[in-house]
Amino acid sequence: MNQLNQLRNFYEQYATNHKFTKAPKGLYEPVDYILNIGGKRLRPLMLLMTAKLFTDDLEKALAPAYAIEIFHNFTLVHDDIMDAAPLRRGKTTVHHKWNVNTGILSGDVMLVQAYEYLRQVDTTILSEVLRIFNEVAIGVCEGQQYDVDFETMDRVTIPQYIKMIELKTSVLVAGAMRIGALVGGANEEDAYNLGEFGRNIGIAFQLQDDILDTYGDPEKFGKKVGGDIAQNKKTFLVLKSLELAHPEVAARLKDLLSMHPEDEAGKIREVTAIFDYLDIRKHANQKKEDYLNLAYKHLKAVNISEDKKQLLYDFAQFLIHRDV
Amino acid sequence: MNQLNQLRNFYEQYATNHKFTKAPKGLYEPVDYILNIGGKRLRPLMLLMTAKLFTDDLEKALAPAYAIEIFHNFTLVHDDIMDAAPLRRGKTTVHHKWNVNTGILSGDVMLVQAYEYLRQVDTTILSEVLRIFNEVAIGVCEGQQYDVDFETMDRVTIPQYIKMIELKTSVLVAGAMRIGALVGGANEEDAYNLGEFGRNIGIAFQLQDDILDTYGDPEKFGKKVGGDIAQNKKTFLVLKSLELAHPEVAARLKDLLSMHPEDEAGKIREVTAIFDYLDIRKHANQKKEDYLNLAYKHLKAVNISEDKKQLLYDFAQFLIHRDV
Repeated sequence: MNQLNQLRNFYEQYATNHKFTKAPKGLYEPVDYILNIGGKRLRPLMLLMTAKLFTDDLEKALAPAYAIEIFHNFTLVHDDIMDAAPLRRGKTTVHHKWNVNTGILSGDVMLVQAYEYLRQVDTTILSEVLRIFNEVAIGVCEGQQYDVDFETMDRVTIPQYIKMIELKTSVLVAGAMRIGALVGGANEEDAYNLGEFGRNIGIAFQLQDDILDTYGDPEKFGKKVGGDIAQNKKTFLVLKSLELAHPEVAARLKDLLSMHPEDEAGKIREVTAIFDYLDIRKHANQKKEDYLNLAYKHLKAVNISEDKKQLLYDFAQFLIHRDV
Repeated sequence: MNQLNQLRNFYEQYATNHKFTKAPKGLYEPVDYILNIGGKRLRPLMLLMTAKLFTDDLEKALAPAYAIEIFHNFTLVHDDIMDAAPLRRGKTTVHHKWNVNTGILSGDVMLVQAYEYLRQVDTTILSEVLRIFNEVAIGVCEGQQYDVDFETMDRVTIPQYIKMIELKTSVLVAGAMRIGALVGGANEEDAYNLGEFGRNIGIAFQLQDDILDTYGDPEKFGKKVGGDIAQNKKTFLVLKSLELAHPEVAARLKDLLSMHPEDEAGKIREVTAIFDYLDIRKHANQKKEDYLNLAYKHLKAVNISEDKKQLLYDFAQFLIHRDV
């Protein structure tokens, strides 16, 4: 992963040189804050790694990589308001540190700044890059809406859930890689396959997120373990449990996930016990592997030498076996 | 104004053909709602009128015109949340009709959709159009932040205030006209001068808005008359009053504009009486005329025949003497 660290340093150097330190402070300090409380930089790194498959001149990939990271953080700021979340990456969320209005407005300017960095790609690919990015951003908004809708729906199917997490999370990963490929000089077909690699890795990544929410190490996990359960989120773990459980267990699970009891820890324990009883972690891991294999199929189809692709294989493994 | 009505119909036809009726409804119904509760379409019309100075093929100006209107309405949705405003154009605001989370998310997708319509300009001018639009959007966010900052500042100067309304309102009018000119085929210099025409018209327009907030006809004015006073906004009327008033009157005005009394109507009456006493409406009208003249200077500098410009002169007069 030495090459990955090099890319990360390369990216961080650019981000440091393009910090948001200007006036008005009330607008930009929250932007600077959210961008610097320890994100993993996965999405910009994926863009850079993909560009690197096709070119050694990565300078021109830095601005779109930064755009992707700014966009991702914009979604976090607005999502945290909508979820009334107090913590992000173990730190106070923007709307808690400042207020909701600041979260809205600073988020808005981040979305615009993302477009301004994106604009810096070669004019020959600008229209196509912008098309992909808009499709991503619209997908992310639609995914967030489906997530909200699911909260009040009695029955959500696993395909509906997968579609939602695909929109909410993995279209951005897909977009980052497809744009990275185009910036690097790839043809449309290779860019498409790398995008599909990213899409499927993204779904696997989100399934891992679902697993970590229940089975993550509280010391390493930036968010509260069991947060999805406390919020009655219909994650893959829940939906698969409802599919597999005996009717009375399913009924109890539904019951648990419709209340906000004072003893939240007790609720999290009981739901986790149901997951354990049904071996849900194994099922989730299996689903994750399915998407991982689909991702590899698309990566294999890309017309470059296999040894160049090794970094992406390694990165996918790293993502899928991460514990934070 | 017959020509203006033709342009409005031309625009409305396009907007009708591109309504946001798709799924998920929770996301797009609010978008469709805010776009169809009777806006004046000033900004897209300005874009179309400007393009028309240089070309008769206005088809290609429709997508960017729609982009500008969608962007403008995005700012209204988010601003209304921040201002906790119940009414917009005499109708319930989005976050009141639905909820704050819906206002945030539907607003976000509008901003992205604006970029998607903007992307449809000729690729030869896309980068420049995008640069102008980003500058506009960043300016609007910064202007909104200064507006918030001013609420808690003890002293705001008239130049600071003008800068704020320039960012909050008139950079968008400027951008609409500059983009319209480029879409029509204007050279950079003419596009610049038309942008500056728009910028100064925009400031005059906002000063008219300040006047209407106090002196508008409640039957015609979509918002609550005296709303700025109730919210203790430091408008031009207030700042000019503080400049002109005797110390004890200024002190009383400051006092009034620091409270939220139960008798809101009484407060609005007393502040209005101070404005009347100082003849503030006349001063505001004078300032408005100054910006109007500056606007005309830039319009004069545009290298097209004067008779082609007549519609813009007429439109400026219409804007400045509007009562709604």
